[in-house]
Amino acid sequence: MTKTVRLGLLGLGTVGRGVYRIVDENRELIERRTGVRLEVTRAAVRDPDKDRGVAVPAGVLTDDPRQVVAAPDVDIVVELVGGSDAARSWVLEAVDAGKHVVTANKALLAEHGDEIRRRAAEAGVALGYEASVAGGVPVIKTLRESLAANRVLSVYGIVNGTCNYILTRMREDGSAFDAVLADAQAAGYAEADPSFDVDGVDSAHKLAILVNLAFGVPVAIDDVHTEGIAGVNPSDIEFGREFGYTLKLLAIAKAAAGPDGRLEVEARVHPTLVADDRPIAQVGGVYNAVQIVGDSVGDLMLYGRGAGERPTASAVLGDILDVARIADSDAAAAYDGGGAAPDGRIRPIAEVSSLYYIRFTVEDKPGVLSQISGILGRYDISIESVIQKGRDAGKTVPLVITTHRARERDMQDALVEIDRLPSVAEPGVLIRVEDDG
Amino acid sequence: MTKTVRLGLLGLGTVGRGVYRIVDENRELIERRTGVRLEVTRAAVRDPDKDRGVAVPAGVLTDDPRQVVAAPDVDIVVELVGGSDAARSWVLEAVDAGKHVVTANKALLAEHGDEIRRRAAEAGVALGYEASVAGGVPVIKTLRESLAANRVLSVYGIVNGTCNYILTRMREDGSAFDAVLADAQAAGYAEADPSFDVDGVDSAHKLAILVNLAFGVPVAIDDVHTEGIAGVNPSDIEFGREFGYTLKLLAIAKAAAGPDGRLEVEARVHPTLVADDRPIAQVGGVYNAVQIVGDSVGDLMLYGRGAGERPTASAVLGDILDVARIADSDAAAAYDGGGAAPDGRIRPIAEVSSLYYIRFTVEDKPGVLSQISGILGRYDISIESVIQKGRDAGKTVPLVITTHRARERDMQDALVEIDRLPSVAEPGVLIRVEDDG
Repeated sequence: MTKTVRLGLLGLGTVGRGVYRIVDENRELIERRTGVRLEVTRAAVRDPDKDRGVAVPAGVLTDDPRQVVAAPDVDIVVELVGGSDAARSWVLEAVDAGKHVVTANKALLAEHGDEIRRRAAEAGVALGYEASVAGGVPVIKTLRESLAANRVLSVYGIVNGTCNYILTRMREDGSAFDAVLADAQAAGYAEADPSFDVDGVDSAHKLAILVNLAFGVPVAIDDVHTEGIAGVNPSDIEFGREFGYTLKLLAIAKAAAGPDGRLEVEARVHPTLVADDRPIAQVGGVYNAVQIVGDSVGDLMLYGRGAGERPTASAVLGDILDVARIADSDAAAAYDGGGAAPDGRIRPIAEVSSLYYIRFTVEDKPGVLSQISGILGRYDISIESVIQKGRDAGKTVPLVITTHRARERDMQDALVEIDRLPSVAEPGVLIRVEDDG
Repeated sequence: MTKTVRLGLLGLGTVGRGVYRIVDENRELIERRTGVRLEVTRAAVRDPDKDRGVAVPAGVLTDDPRQVVAAPDVDIVVELVGGSDAARSWVLEAVDAGKHVVTANKALLAEHGDEIRRRAAEAGVALGYEASVAGGVPVIKTLRESLAANRVLSVYGIVNGTCNYILTRMREDGSAFDAVLADAQAAGYAEADPSFDVDGVDSAHKLAILVNLAFGVPVAIDDVHTEGIAGVNPSDIEFGREFGYTLKLLAIAKAAAGPDGRLEVEARVHPTLVADDRPIAQVGGVYNAVQIVGDSVGDLMLYGRGAGERPTASAVLGDILDVARIADSDAAAAYDGGGAAPDGRIRPIAEVSSLYYIRFTVEDKPGVLSQISGILGRYDISIESVIQKGRDAGKTVPLVITTHRARERDMQDALVEIDRLPSVAEPGVLIRVEDDG
């Protein structure tokens, strides 16, 4: 009954080491449970002599990825090197060689997903990429399989643990971004060069993958409106709290009907205020969470560890065992949302509508609120609430406004006009507020 | 590319109607996304003339389930009648006829799961039962597939929306069980005969399914220690709140090593106090949530709608499309945890250890606490905190104690002794406190 499936790993970094260790430690359990015996027969690394903390037998290690991709004793190529260009060519070579591919590489999928999926389908091989979004949290499988009969209405969530850790600490401690980032780096929760995470690029890659899967709409990474958290001011976290909101970096995708009836999808990554009592607001620290709303299932939330050696390797192995189960069958070519709505398109951010939080720094004198609300009114933006702090004639004070639903273009145009007012001392700060779900 | 898969429904009640409607409404979307075109070719109902709110073509409806099971134009039998005896025989007939089976029937799985899985494996057909636990929440798939490489350490959650609705309302309103139950019945959140839900039997069925899948340990429904919520007193919800806890009906399964090194699994359903800041404490109303801890993935929580026409039908269709994908391949025979640990066993409740909340009704006179704590001490139960309410000499007052970890047998024995004290007016109330995860 047992079927042996041979793995060729590209990369033995954090996740690769995790995969190797789990295969080693849980081999018997996996075999009893699934009937599949896993063997790592090849592993390509840059420097085969480096100590990786795992005892890889001689003959398995190589410094040539192409040997892994072409090896006759490899059934599944497991790509864990990251980056997109070299990974792309190795993955395509693997596919052309008839190997199934499992990858944790979000940049690869976000940038070359269409090409790789198409080639995998042509070659009749499976492509697993659960680990590319939210680590150990089974978001991909849920969208691709569990909700296959649902029209997805929205997908949004916290998909970058570094940013969530930083925002959680900023809220808890009242600290500034730079100080918390430095702590996070010291604690290993942020990279030495954190820009990929804190600028929102990592979240945008993941969102592009989710959008493709959930809505079947072609999406280029540049289509995703992306703002990071480096500019987040602790005072906005505090004012947000006064309104009953928590600030999160959310990756948001929502389906809407375009003016011509075609499917349009909002796809955006930005700091977002969410009501404190919503499940996603309560996701703290390095945890990830994704909320999915489907026309049948209603709202669903998946919550767990979005990164790290073991959680990510757990997802890679889930894919490996899925592929192993169907490896010899004609069911191998993975389906996914790709192509389900080829005439859909991403809605430009200017056309998105949202609730807004805006903070102005204004001179503390009569008439300022009237000027600002007058401009907002002319752009059809109605005010929900106002907090005017302090009374300090002649000095500047914060003026915080939340609005009802308004169109992004109108809001941006109004902001430009408001920023020109003589009594407005600094450019207004705009944060979108999420009220759905 | 398109493959047509023909469904034979057993039952067109709430869930069956949902399946029929989703197939009808989302047929094109499903086909574009998965390459599978679904057709309901047969549907067995008790009374074919009854109006069900769906327009089923003539020739599809029959009053004979055996016609569906045996029909040559049915690829997948979808069992949605509930109950266990008749359903068992129809499902086994379907399996013997080489049909794949998808079911939402937790009682069937909990009572006859081993037999049905074995027969399905022998026949080489797939068995899907995602909808049997937590409705639209993909708990089964996550355990069976995503976490296939994990050693599961614990699974616990809220798997009965009726009980969670009642407990949420009792906490919010301070109302008594009977009053909230009557409201829940009026609102359609509880059955006319609610005993299956409120006595914990429904949760126990679901837990048995989860235990089998997560740990591979054989489990009979009588092995699951089951307590319902009918006896929950609002005062314990209130005292719990003072300690920072929320009262939930949890289904709990935990792996532990037995004295001989064999795997032992705790399997119990009972009202449980959980710390307010834990995600599961914040799951309100009819929502379900299941937390899974795996050795690699860490902790994972899945949250969503555990019942209702559409969410449950969504899960049924997820299974149908999974089966459709592998229907013609040798990958069809579903694997699951069953058999992974055949020498494991369920730990008797007396051997379980837990934290406890106990409330006594005692005469308000000096020395009572000393007597009670003396007895607890002799049973090796150490007190964590005490709340002694009111001062009303000569009358009875509540005395609430929380304990450190203790063994259930010791706690029960101590309770018997304490209840015999002359100054103890009513039997002590015991509620387990969950601190893991």
